[in-house]
Amino acid sequence: MMSQPTNIAKARNKETSEIPQGSPPDTPKLMPGGNYIKIGRDSARSTCIVFAPLAEEVGALAKCLNIFEKHRVNLLHIESRPSTRNLENYEFMVECAPTGNLPKAIIEVKENSEYFNIISRDYKDNKDTVPWFPGRIRDLDRFANQILSYGAELDSDHPGFTDPVYRARRKYFADIAYNYKHGEKLPHVEYTDEEIDTWGKVFEQLTTLYPTHACKEHNHVFPLLIQNCGYRKDNIPQLEDVSNFLKDCTGFTLRPVAGLLSSRDFLAGLAFRVFHSTQYIRHPSKPFYTPEPDVCHELLGHAPLFADPAFAQFSQQIGLASLGAPDDYIEKLATCFWFTVEYGLCREGGELKAFGAGLLSSYGELQYALENKAEIRPFDPPKTAVQKYPITEYQPVYYVAESFEDAKEKMIKYAATIPRGFGVRYNPYTQSIEVLDSKPQIQSLVTNIGTEISVLVDSLKKL
Amino acid sequence: MMSQPTNIAKARNKETSEIPQGSPPDTPKLMPGGNYIKIGRDSARSTCIVFAPLAEEVGALAKCLNIFEKHRVNLLHIESRPSTRNLENYEFMVECAPTGNLPKAIIEVKENSEYFNIISRDYKDNKDTVPWFPGRIRDLDRFANQILSYGAELDSDHPGFTDPVYRARRKYFADIAYNYKHGEKLPHVEYTDEEIDTWGKVFEQLTTLYPTHACKEHNHVFPLLIQNCGYRKDNIPQLEDVSNFLKDCTGFTLRPVAGLLSSRDFLAGLAFRVFHSTQYIRHPSKPFYTPEPDVCHELLGHAPLFADPAFAQFSQQIGLASLGAPDDYIEKLATCFWFTVEYGLCREGGELKAFGAGLLSSYGELQYALENKAEIRPFDPPKTAVQKYPITEYQPVYYVAESFEDAKEKMIKYAATIPRGFGVRYNPYTQSIEVLDSKPQIQSLVTNIGTEISVLVDSLKKL
Amino acid sequence: MMSQPTNIAKARNKETSEIPQGSPPDTPKLMPGGNYIKIGRDSARSTCIVFAPLAEEVGALAKCLNIFEKHRVNLLHIESRPSTRNLENYEFMVECAPTGNLPKAIIEVKENSEYFNIISRDYKDNKDTVPWFPGRIRDLDRFANQILSYGAELDSDHPGFTDPVYRARRKYFADIAYNYKHGEKLPHVEYTDEEIDTWGKVFEQLTTLYPTHACKEHNHVFPLLIQNCGYRKDNIPQLEDVSNFLKDCTGFTLRPVAGLLSSRDFLAGLAFRVFHSTQYIRHPSKPFYTPEPDVCHELLGHAPLFADPAFAQFSQQIGLASLGAPDDYIEKLATCFWFTVEYGLCREGGELKAFGAGLLSSYGELQYALENKAEIRPFDPPKTAVQKYPITEYQPVYYVAESFEDAKEKMIKYAATIPRGFGVRYNPYTQSIEVLDSKPQIQSLVTNIGTEISVLVDSLKKL
Amino acid sequence: MMSQPTNIAKARNKETSEIPQGSPPDTPKLMPGGNYIKIGRDSARSTCIVFAPLAEEVGALAKCLNIFEKHRVNLLHIESRPSTRNLENYEFMVECAPTGNLPKAIIEVKENSEYFNIISRDYKDNKDTVPWFPGRIRDLDRFANQILSYGAELDSDHPGFTDPVYRARRKYFADIAYNYKHGEKLPHVEYTDEEIDTWGKVFEQLTTLYPTHACKEHNHVFPLLIQNCGYRKDNIPQLEDVSNFLKDCTGFTLRPVAGLLSSRDFLAGLAFRVFHSTQYIRHPSKPFYTPEPDVCHELLGHAPLFADPAFAQFSQQIGLASLGAPDDYIEKLATCFWFTVEYGLCREGGELKAFGAGLLSSYGELQYALENKAEIRPFDPPKTAVQKYPITEYQPVYYVAESFEDAKEKMIKYAATIPRGFGVRYNPYTQSIEVLDSKPQIQSLVTNIGTEISVLVDSLKKL
Repeated sequence: MMSQPTNIAKARNKETSEIPQGSPPDTPKLMPGGNYIKIGRDSARSTCIVFAPLAEEVGALAKCLNIFEKHRVNLLHIESRPSTRNLENYEFMVECAPTGNLPKAIIEVKENSEYFNIISRDYKDNKDTVPWFPGRIRDLDRFANQILSYGAELDSDHPGFTDPVYRARRKYFADIAYNYKHGEKLPHVEYTDEEIDTWGKVFEQLTTLYPTHACKEHNHVFPLLIQNCGYRKDNIPQLEDVSNFLKDCTGFTLRPVAGLLSSRDFLAGLAFRVFHSTQYIRHPSKPFYTPEPDVCHELLGHAPLFADPAFAQFSQQIGLASLGAPDDYIEKLATCFWFTVEYGLCREGGELKAFGAGLLSSYGELQYALENKAEIRPFDPPKTAVQKYPITEYQPVYYVAESFEDAKEKMIKYAATIPRGFGVRYNPYTQSIEVLDSKPQIQSLVTNIGTEISVLVDSLKKL
Repeated sequence: MMSQPTNIAKARNKETSEIPQGSPPDTPKLMPGGNYIKIGRDSARSTCIVFAPLAEEVGALAKCLNIFEKHRVNLLHIESRPSTRNLENYEFMVECAPTGNLPKAIIEVKENSEYFNIISRDYKDNKDTVPWFPGRIRDLDRFANQILSYGAELDSDHPGFTDPVYRARRKYFADIAYNYKHGEKLPHVEYTDEEIDTWGKVFEQLTTLYPTHACKEHNHVFPLLIQNCGYRKDNIPQLEDVSNFLKDCTGFTLRPVAGLLSSRDFLAGLAFRVFHSTQYIRHPSKPFYTPEPDVCHELLGHAPLFADPAFAQFSQQIGLASLGAPDDYIEKLATCFWFTVEYGLCREGGELKAFGAGLLSSYGELQYALENKAEIRPFDPPKTAVQKYPITEYQPVYYVAESFEDAKEKMIKYAATIPRGFGVRYNPYTQSIEVLDSKPQIQSLVTNIGTEISVLVDSLKKL
Repeated sequence: MMSQPTNIAKARNKETSEIPQGSPPDTPKLMPGGNYIKIGRDSARSTCIVFAPLAEEVGALAKCLNIFEKHRVNLLHIESRPSTRNLENYEFMVECAPTGNLPKAIIEVKENSEYFNIISRDYKDNKDTVPWFPGRIRDLDRFANQILSYGAELDSDHPGFTDPVYRARRKYFADIAYNYKHGEKLPHVEYTDEEIDTWGKVFEQLTTLYPTHACKEHNHVFPLLIQNCGYRKDNIPQLEDVSNFLKDCTGFTLRPVAGLLSSRDFLAGLAFRVFHSTQYIRHPSKPFYTPEPDVCHELLGHAPLFADPAFAQFSQQIGLASLGAPDDYIEKLATCFWFTVEYGLCREGGELKAFGAGLLSSYGELQYALENKAEIRPFDPPKTAVQKYPITEYQPVYYVAESFEDAKEKMIKYAATIPRGFGVRYNPYTQSIEVLDSKPQIQSLVTNIGTEISVLVDSLKKL
Repeated sequence: MMSQPTNIAKARNKETSEIPQGSPPDTPKLMPGGNYIKIGRDSARSTCIVFAPLAEEVGALAKCLNIFEKHRVNLLHIESRPSTRNLENYEFMVECAPTGNLPKAIIEVKENSEYFNIISRDYKDNKDTVPWFPGRIRDLDRFANQILSYGAELDSDHPGFTDPVYRARRKYFADIAYNYKHGEKLPHVEYTDEEIDTWGKVFEQLTTLYPTHACKEHNHVFPLLIQNCGYRKDNIPQLEDVSNFLKDCTGFTLRPVAGLLSSRDFLAGLAFRVFHSTQYIRHPSKPFYTPEPDVCHELLGHAPLFADPAFAQFSQQIGLASLGAPDDYIEKLATCFWFTVEYGLCREGGELKAFGAGLLSSYGELQYALENKAEIRPFDPPKTAVQKYPITEYQPVYYVAESFEDAKEKMIKYAATIPRGFGVRYNPYTQSIEVLDSKPQIQSLVTNIGTEISVLVDSLKKL
């Protein structure tokens, strides 16, 4: 039996807010010295405070910084920006290490603030604390310190467990991802002949099924991937090329990942239209099996769909819904992700087709799912979100989306039911998340809509 | 007498569609061999054809490529993407060198196309040809081959004309810009003590005037530039730092420029929220005078305003209006730019303030303009656009914007009067221009607006 | 057992496009002589042609009228208005009697028209013919000639079948409705003591259940009906008073109905926010039973809900969806109406409540439905629309709406799947239906949205 | 010299908040006894209080009514409706006569209210009191008691001053209007042969100029008025027919007016798309002169334009802007009205044309205005609003609107600068004004926009 669990799947079985104990000691040379652990740890347990001072003056920041000093709280990062909530004020983002008397400092800063918000990994026992999420696309760099298991670690039943060459190779890929920073080119990888051979076997087998089993969006994009990104039997496409192609189509980009991410982090990436992708390939001994996502799964299953605008929007909505959501909703959203982006079906002219990457990268399950042996239900977030599912077997139930547009609307509606004290919006200009909780922000959103209407008026005239 | 002509000002006196004869021979070592001239020339005179084949199949591209081959037309670049105009079709962008029998090839491709559009620098005598404009942000790299005069060339009355050290320095800066590619970090420059000294004099003098003469948006952002980007008397800020700060605020970025751009190219940059900025500084002999824009003008005059969301939107609208516009409208838009972004005034509680960079970087004219000695008129694009103006003297008339929001709306309205057969929209996800001339695109725009309304509904609920 | 079939229920069992043979001969004195049948018949079988002449001149109408004359087609009504599809043209609406050679006339007019559309009761065998629907609110007057059974006719098992006084009374009410014209006051009725007594029994019994069984919208409005419209045990409220109250709340109005309307006509009324209401009361022998809707059902069940803005919008959407829809969709929409406006449930804080008028006017079924004895399903138009249901028994299944807002959105979405070559919009200023099938109309709609956004901007500022 | 002052013109010279002393005693027989004066007076000086009780219960109204009783304040009208500001509360509108201790009652009610607003004719010395405006279309009936001079009174220089027959006729028309109530048919008038003859002279003279001097919208509609409303030399059209035609086109309706209205009242009518129209005709001795508006002015000048959707929207915006505005802004808006609806020009393909009714009903001034003898300026509300103008002579300056759409947008923008603590919106379903000052109302507005977007999506699909 085959199975393609994904980055997000296993994550649910592990503690999500702790750095794995084992990995850093295992990889001391990769990291910039002792700094690594400290920064990583601190960053993982750091608390972000966003605040606007009561007095609308820049000197106000200095005053607040004194408060942290007084309480011996180390600051890892400071940022000052114009406030979007009060156009005459400033907004400060301060990232505090878990040092000194942070609670007291927080209380004092809050008393001196017009606006105040805490975002922290350490939210479970703290009321009014929003679970940490990345505010800017560059914050995704922090996920590297949050991985649940470093990519080079293999389970004992992994086909490559006893293969030292494969393990070294896996470490090579993990290190690339670990050191990757936003804005850099995705490292070019020279795949070995053996790796290319594995890819070729998978490629050849799956592409015979696509014309009849894949959804039309997948089939529409696939030839372009051949033309533009080197998709072919004897070549493993480079993430950089695929990412650039997707960026042109929908703004989605790929980012290498050093190991398993927590569901929270993985989904947060989608809010930025960033997909965390593995770059290594499965063990050559079992070309048609992998217990975890690999480059075949990502490039054959996921990548084509991210070139579709409606699918891209749908995926991003799952991501946006997850930002700052409570833990139980993170699990629900991950389940929605599972039954759509991973195992989703759709109907085309009465026929079932697959758009989920887990299906599109599994010769066996792709056929199984469309043979009506399993149960088929309409995608309905409130229900789909609480469906149990196995990770290591074929799914007993599949969900059918009416269309990506419809799935997106349903997801937006579902997101509105998540308990969260603010609206969120991705600003693609600043590549940052806007936490909408004030009137000026809403006015600015309305003004934007007005501008879009103007563009619409002009374009209609010229149609 | 002082004067701050800008990148865009002189451009209007020169031919815009030719590469300067002198510059490339002058700078052979900078360029990668003979290739440079050829590619530059070809690129400058190249013709872009965007088309969707009649038959909705990928093989259609090969068929079309054969047509070009048959007519001996060399292709510089080929791109295939999903069409946004017909969701079941593809769209090809082919850049043709001015070789072979291009007109015949064009006719033949057109006959085989469902959608067809020509964008070319060589539009003046060709009906149905849209003047060339960058479609993606990386296309801005091509401007380097389009500069009207290479940055190292100085006029005989330039203070540095006879200073070989200054000229070498200017060449150094021009070369940096010439070789810069989109996505790279903006090169860090070590400024000399003499340069820093010049900056310091200008910085000190101007900052005494800002509290009383600059608009509130400038004064609001300035302290943040001090905090975040190293604005101070003894330091010339790095473009990279300023650009990153602006990117966080509004998505605007700076890009070094090797010489004078044509108005068409310069304005096109604004459509992408990219501002072409000089990096060199004026000659030390005349610290309070410069016949051309320099780093003082850019960083003290322009940069603070680009951090303001409404100003950023206004500036982008001028850029969007210019894409594919006829030559006379390019001049009109450049004039609007001149009387706003360069020399604009606004009113705050009854008092006149300056937001134009030309004023904010000139101690003399900043005072002059607000002393009511010159004529003051309300900013009204149809009228402002045809106002004549001197480049080397104080302006005899200044225009007052009610607000940036109002100026933006007026500009959108004015843009709607420009003869152009399509609407345009910037897609910040793909960092590309959408040419809106089909129903599916308009539907997609309406769907986007619907999604924004959903965000609005959700945010209002949580307010 | 009790049952409250509604105006719309039985309609589905009868031919909808024929005037009942029996009724007019039975009621000769009410009608203005022989004219009645002829006009009625002609109107019922008339064909409406909306067209804009090719030549944009008023004389064009005369030319077209000649065509009808030539083919001996009698015209029942002519209207000329500015076209909304081509702002420089006119639009003519001509209602043709089924006389002369109508098909030939139609072909000839079509050839001379820029825009052409046929709306006819006689659409079944005619391609390109849209089933007739009222274009203006005054067109609802025509329904009187379309009733499926005149109000005075009673089935043999009707409690009042053998009661000549009751039958005379029913005829009195039918005649009021038959002669009613849009814009007139709703006739004041002096109810007899016996009638008031019947009402009082029903009123007393039901009002004990409302606090616990009716939805919050019903309970919120009910006290206002007591205060404003004379709802009380010893008084049957006047339709005029209730209609005026509803008009103030949501613009809904009541209109007396002389007998059973076809589903198509009944639903069309809702598009205008007009609810066709009976005015007579059930037979006094069985105060807790009625085989058909009566004033208790309308005023206790329906009226309170129509005062709720979201419910009013939902109901209107069903109406809009029905205009020009094919017969099978009329039945589907009538079924949606049945399971919401007549028998709908909703959930409030976990508890089931009733908002359907059929439940709110039946002491027995109201309790039954909320006791969880029947099956409960979520309201989902595509599924609900095809559910079979009994008219004379308690429902075996009830549908639960999440909220009226949600039900409205679902209905809009479902409406978009109805095969119909145009969009529709109700223009409340002109009280007419806009058939949206041209670009200028869409532009005008976008302009309206833009104006609404301006109001929004202004209101937000002042919040 | 000719002149067409309008209903609104003279109004500015008179006190607007007092009922004329003379008129009611002059017309005792028309009115229903002594009641008339009392009700009229009280209504004119009445105070409207809109409030929502603190406790969300219907009994709350009774409690508040007790407060009024305690302070001996007579209530002229009471209305209870669901609140749109708090969906679980009610809203009461109470109209108080100026009796008892109203100030104390107001304070006490306010203390017991969640929402509280005073609208009163008696606002000048009362802070927080919004100048009275009609909330529902039927409130326009109250204007009859507010007229500045009863229609039968003529100035000594009026051509009919010494003509008892003409004066009797004028009284006849004034009485019709005085007794008219919203919802009634506009009374049919049998014009005398002499009156028809006067109309014929004016009609004949003006219609020769229209093809060359009137704007295209006027010329487009005029033939339809001939076809539908009996516009011809030998017939004075009935207001009812014209009003019905306009209602079909744009929802505008005519309403007879018994005398001069204050600017505030006259403009308020426009907010409901109601135009107050005279029905009498000028004195036969001077067919080409009238010192006041008459039926020639209304039907030839105004009516055609109100059939144009964009013009209708523009006119309504002036009306909406006026509701609750301070006195100085009422004068400014009346001036905008004067220079557009009465004396406005527009440009068509470079040529000036007239759309103002004052011009379109004056043979002399229509020619004068287009001969470029007078000054021509672009319509710009902030400037136009403060332009002085003569009432009895040709205008020395005319304003040119770019288009009605543009004029509307400018007016909306200008309206946003009027100091007023709330947004307003006309609800054409309930024919009432929505005072927007709460979040739920704004949410409801956004929801409406969302629904419009859905209609747009559907219509675009079907285009």
